Amino acid sequence: MDEDDVVRYLLKREEQIMERLCAFLRIPSVSTDPAFAEGMRKAQSFLLVWLESMGLRDVQLLDGSGHPAVYGAWEGAPGKPTILIYGHYDVMPPDPVEAWVSPAFEPTIRSGRLYARGASDVKGSTAIALETIEGFLKVRGACPVNIKVFLEGEEESGSASLRTIVDRFRPLLQADAMISADGGRASADIPTINVGCRGLVELEVSVKTAAKDLHSGRYGGAVRNAAHEMARIIATLHDERGAIAVPDLVAAVPELTSDAREQTARFPFDDGEFVREVGGLAHGEPGYSVREQLTLRPALDINGMWSGYIGTGSKTIIPNVAHAKLSLRTVPEQSIEHAVAALKAHLQSVTPQGVDLTIDDPGTGAEAFSLPSGHPLVICARKVLREATGKDPVLVRLGASVPITVIFEELLDVQTLMFGFNLPDEDVHAPNEFFHVASLAQGLSAWPRLLTALGEFDSGSFRQDERLQG
Amino acid sequence: MDEDDVVRYLLKREEQIMERLCAFLRIPSVSTDPAFAEGMRKAQSFLLVWLESMGLRDVQLLDGSGHPAVYGAWEGAPGKPTILIYGHYDVMPPDPVEAWVSPAFEPTIRSGRLYARGASDVKGSTAIALETIEGFLKVRGACPVNIKVFLEGEEESGSASLRTIVDRFRPLLQADAMISADGGRASADIPTINVGCRGLVELEVSVKTAAKDLHSGRYGGAVRNAAHEMARIIATLHDERGAIAVPDLVAAVPELTSDAREQTARFPFDDGEFVREVGGLAHGEPGYSVREQLTLRPALDINGMWSGYIGTGSKTIIPNVAHAKLSLRTVPEQSIEHAVAALKAHLQSVTPQGVDLTIDDPGTGAEAFSLPSGHPLVICARKVLREATGKDPVLVRLGASVPITVIFEELLDVQTLMFGFNLPDEDVHAPNEFFHVASLAQGLSAWPRLLTALGEFDSGSFRQDERLQG
Repeated sequence: MDEDDVVRYLLKREEQIMERLCAFLRIPSVSTDPAFAEGMRKAQSFLLVWLESMGLRDVQLLDGSGHPAVYGAWEGAPGKPTILIYGHYDVMPPDPVEAWVSPAFEPTIRSGRLYARGASDVKGSTAIALETIEGFLKVRGACPVNIKVFLEGEEESGSASLRTIVDRFRPLLQADAMISADGGRASADIPTINVGCRGLVELEVSVKTAAKDLHSGRYGGAVRNAAHEMARIIATLHDERGAIAVPDLVAAVPELTSDAREQTARFPFDDGEFVREVGGLAHGEPGYSVREQLTLRPALDINGMWSGYIGTGSKTIIPNVAHAKLSLRTVPEQSIEHAVAALKAHLQSVTPQGVDLTIDDPGTGAEAFSLPSGHPLVICARKVLREATGKDPVLVRLGASVPITVIFEELLDVQTLMFGFNLPDEDVHAPNEFFHVASLAQGLSAWPRLLTALGEFDSGSFRQDERLQG
Repeated sequence: MDEDDVVRYLLKREEQIMERLCAFLRIPSVSTDPAFAEGMRKAQSFLLVWLESMGLRDVQLLDGSGHPAVYGAWEGAPGKPTILIYGHYDVMPPDPVEAWVSPAFEPTIRSGRLYARGASDVKGSTAIALETIEGFLKVRGACPVNIKVFLEGEEESGSASLRTIVDRFRPLLQADAMISADGGRASADIPTINVGCRGLVELEVSVKTAAKDLHSGRYGGAVRNAAHEMARIIATLHDERGAIAVPDLVAAVPELTSDAREQTARFPFDDGEFVREVGGLAHGEPGYSVREQLTLRPALDINGMWSGYIGTGSKTIIPNVAHAKLSLRTVPEQSIEHAVAALKAHLQSVTPQGVDLTIDDPGTGAEAFSLPSGHPLVICARKVLREATGKDPVLVRLGASVPITVIFEELLDVQTLMFGFNLPDEDVHAPNEFFHVASLAQGLSAWPRLLTALGEFDSGSFRQDERLQG
């Protein structure tokens, strides 16, 4: 049996596949904002019906007291490895909505790009995975490996209940390895395999300087202003070159190995072009290339800050509170627990007397992750990509974070291959997010081949190889 | 004729007067936000009907292409001075609405306080002025002076079209002096006369660091973050003690005269209590008392700042823009034009290459103002307050700004006495704004006596005395 029958079947159906993807994208499944609860429920129904109709068993919602995950399995290949297929059906909020050329939840194709919130992150690649499984079952009545589909509903809101779900449904989720539709390609031209990602932890910081907002005429000049205090605190987080200036945090970041630097340098990358493309100038920790800054070094960013009157017109108040949402991207061998403790101690130390500092820590951080290069997942991905492109894939790391990898490794002892087909230019998390239409066919060709290659291993070889590679 | 017949009439009607004030307060006349346009129109109608029904002539809206002013006149006292009566019918936005104990536009009396947006600033005192005029006309069919009522609709949004209106209707508005219902009392116990106020100018500052919001995983560590840049800029505006740190601006502020310091010290004021009352700690320019900081020294405040994602949950973006609303309170002999130029130059100088700085200057600043202490307005106010309280009033200055004073002085050559009855603890511009119910009767007793005292001067003496006092 050759996997090409399935690939041919899928490519012939590309138009219907695009239609179903658009139906998926029309559902406003924003997990971070309770106003979109109805959209979340609609996305769950959409997926339950799809998994059931393609012939998966045990189709159900896995509840962890947040947004549930959608689950379904096909276990008709005894002796073959069992592969968890990960995707997520939730998307980022569409804000700022007025910046979208076509509405965020009305998928629109322009110039070879499918515009919609979630098109790139990650409904497009999730659809490729599901269509692949359906293709095998339709064409052959069987998949080359056992399949357990796990579609998360809280990836964009910090995977708050993921650990609870995986722990609660541990027996159901037993598998040999995981392929994730999240964590896309680094380049459209150069084949790459993601072998790791940065960690992520988020905090919300608030300062309070008075019991209430005060009139700036009546109090201006004699009381603290919460916006000033927040600005002074934020200004201490980086030096003027853009390097993180939280000493205890920085001290615990390991120096780069020469191997890591060499691997990173193999990926062709134009530092100047990268920053010019987004309309910026080079900025960040000196002594590191942009790729190193993005994938091998930590990043600390204010994701949002607000204080006082931000409506139309003016309101001459002295704000009594100010807030900032903060995220820290960590690297391997950097402990999130230590980094957060260092960050909190720094924030306390720079907050003057008379200012109340509150740090809201949801405790949902995910450590950075690394996949050993000799793991069957990497071997198979290498084979598939080499055959498809004629080039030896470059092993790359992601700057973004896929918290699921750590949770699944820890609770189920499975390693994850990120095999999403999204690309870096697709304005993920921003207005006018899109998915390159050409990526759909590329994904529908590669996924069947990957599952076929994995089917040539037996279940036992996964853990053995992993141990060998440490 | 004694003014006590009018005072008696007004105090007997206090209940009806409170009812009419509540009707006025129920109208959401927020001038800064276009969403309240209907409330602005309702407030205009309410006032037009009131002025017409009490017997004023020439009742009309004075248009300057923004929110119009409401006007009406009584000119039945030939040879007597003509007094402009100033108030404003617009109010601040009610935000944050959730912080109000009773809704902002449902006036509610609790423990001797009338809670409503605008109760203190300045519908309460405006109502006192109008009820006084109506009282004279009802009881005697005449006022002791000629009256021109001018009720502004844009005081809370920087008086954008006030200059245009006053200039356009200059002949109609000719007067000898002005009494303002805005600019309240400094204390409930100690009689005071406001003889000046700080100036006010507002700017909106924006920075842009990239063409769009960027994913913090894909870009974090290698690009500028607009929130960081705004924080660094704001942090340069003050030193750690709270003193303004814009050298060219500070250098142009005149040193305090010993006379100014003595006058300020006459007003009993507990510095520690003042900051404790608002839940803060002492903060601000060293070497000055709190009263001096508030009334004789400039203040620079961020009134609002915002950047990135500020909704529920999280969104891991690197914001590409950040905004801040900024206000500067100036003191006499400090030129706004110079201060704004110094501030702009400073902002430019601290903005690094790679960051686009935009400063939106609506050009609606108002200089600080001073009323000469020998002016008939001060003489009359002193007499009325001494008789009412048995104490010699203290001459005080306001920390807040009443831009109208400068505009009327410049265009109509009239001086302004601020004779509002609001008090400093009334949470102006904040949630749960209120007006002390007891102030209503105090105002209704004082205003008729003030108009009677002014009626003892003739028209010519205003300008003469002014010249004598310089």
